[in-house]
Amino acid sequence: MMRLATLPDGTPDGRLHIVSRDNARCAPAEAAHTLQAALEGWDSLRPLLAAEYDTLNQGGGAPFDPATAMAPLPRAWAWLDGSAFDNHGLLMDEAFGVKAEKIPGKPLMYQGISDRFLAPAADVPLPSEGDGIDFEGEFGVLTSAVPMGTTDTLPKIALLVQINDWSLRKLGAAEMKTRFGWIQAKPACAMAPVALTPDELGPAWAGGRIHLPLQVAWNGATFGNPHGGEMSVGFDALVAHAAYSRHLPAGTVIGSGTVSNAAYRSVGSACIAERRAIEMLDHGDAQTPFLSFGDRVRMECRAADGGPLFGAIDQRVIPA
Amino acid sequence: MMRLATLPDGTPDGRLHIVSRDNARCAPAEAAHTLQAALEGWDSLRPLLAAEYDTLNQGGGAPFDPATAMAPLPRAWAWLDGSAFDNHGLLMDEAFGVKAEKIPGKPLMYQGISDRFLAPAADVPLPSEGDGIDFEGEFGVLTSAVPMGTTDTLPKIALLVQINDWSLRKLGAAEMKTRFGWIQAKPACAMAPVALTPDELGPAWAGGRIHLPLQVAWNGATFGNPHGGEMSVGFDALVAHAAYSRHLPAGTVIGSGTVSNAAYRSVGSACIAERRAIEMLDHGDAQTPFLSFGDRVRMECRAADGGPLFGAIDQRVIPA
Repeated sequence: MMRLATLPDGTPDGRLHIVSRDNARCAPAEAAHTLQAALEGWDSLRPLLAAEYDTLNQGGGAPFDPATAMAPLPRAWAWLDGSAFDNHGLLMDEAFGVKAEKIPGKPLMYQGISDRFLAPAADVPLPSEGDGIDFEGEFGVLTSAVPMGTTDTLPKIALLVQINDWSLRKLGAAEMKTRFGWIQAKPACAMAPVALTPDELGPAWAGGRIHLPLQVAWNGATFGNPHGGEMSVGFDALVAHAAYSRHLPAGTVIGSGTVSNAAYRSVGSACIAERRAIEMLDHGDAQTPFLSFGDRVRMECRAADGGPLFGAIDQRVIPA
Repeated sequence: MMRLATLPDGTPDGRLHIVSRDNARCAPAEAAHTLQAALEGWDSLRPLLAAEYDTLNQGGGAPFDPATAMAPLPRAWAWLDGSAFDNHGLLMDEAFGVKAEKIPGKPLMYQGISDRFLAPAADVPLPSEGDGIDFEGEFGVLTSAVPMGTTDTLPKIALLVQINDWSLRKLGAAEMKTRFGWIQAKPACAMAPVALTPDELGPAWAGGRIHLPLQVAWNGATFGNPHGGEMSVGFDALVAHAAYSRHLPAGTVIGSGTVSNAAYRSVGSACIAERRAIEMLDHGDAQTPFLSFGDRVRMECRAADGGPLFGAIDQRVIPA
């Protein structure tokens, strides 16, 4: 078991830290200087880092302030985002008026920006309010190196993370029509401050899925609490899909797509576009606006007993 | 003016070398150890590297053997591939039976694998002949860092490269229907051994385009010689499109898409799918098969006077 975070040290990759089980204290990792290095040597470094975690849990270290943390992996060689919550897909077809045609037996997935993951408390600079600024609450995994063609991928899932996949909706539908995927509609994502080994979740990690709700709030008001267990395929299947014709480098980030439940009327949503789609279904038109500059979005996933896990993403959108 | 290549030294990024104007000799670069480092400090390092190039052109150095070279940039933080040859798009709509709907005033673009660019003489391991293995001859540019929203992008184009964007066609059409872009249909690309500053091309670099033909051969037989000047938008427009809502890190690779000309009947094609589309138009069905394991594909672009530029990509496809 292990919790990891990255604190700024003036370099692009930052300095890897071990975080205590209560997310209250941290200490610089000894076995690896960066999370990228840890993931490149994961099989041999994991036990060393886990031993450091055990020591830290007995006491010592410095206070951990998530507001100063970088993304656990501040940049990665690849970000491959699935769309494994089928309910999100159904509502997005409605919201965009453009249908994503799934390939039987294969998940939906696109490749996005990986050269920077925003820090969990960093402002989010975006070009225009007119682009339909939206959030997307997701879970993700960080892999060790996955050779092309690997199908037994569960052992390659090194760490779990929580992501806000910022999106520009008014550009999104048009880019879907190109069938080339998204370029302008998908700015850089943010990552919650703490990455966890899957066993930190106990029974809430099962079937390659995170069986916990994601709490999403917009300007302090609850927006949704959809549950991560409802993925139509697990992260293991997403990793295998990505690795069919490519090697996945250590530190590849694989996303679940927006967390979304069939019971959306009771649990709410993890993005505005879904709420707008529901409004279209109910009233014929969307009523909820997209974000304005200055708006804050907060996302957090806690354990069943209320204990902290990934920490919170809490950001404000600002003009670029 | 300057020519650069990367030779293996046991590290993922390799060792940057200066290459003489005749591509015959090389010397380790003094001002930067890797091309990534050179591009991160491009404004200040470029004159130093150019001075090293001038010195090398006067004599000295070691023989340059392109067969041992890595890709000039063996891995990058981003690979954003346009589709700027409209004729290719028209024929691919036919080949796939799926239309890419362009956004008025915007180029087509997708994000693909950037964590590895294959060496120009490296074998290409792929999962199955049944996937419809195809090549795509392209030109590309390597940028210095481009801040979000930059519109004057020509000065950000540091180097020109030549690319083979390997493709799996039988997976491609289905992935286009998802509207998420390509994951399994686009394995790692290869890069020709030499990267050039744009001024190495003299008048053949104009309007953000490379006005030279790309010679493509399949198992030794000429397949096509389409001309790079026919891009509907220049590389500067492709870079600006990519930078609308994201910062482009130094070393971002931007591709032209498959080089293709309206006069395809006389100049041929830079990918098999186009030839198959022409056969469909002429005969109702495609006759040319895709590649078999063991097949070789060679691509080279030479100057108007026949002098070497990027060197050749010459690879064999093999089972993964």
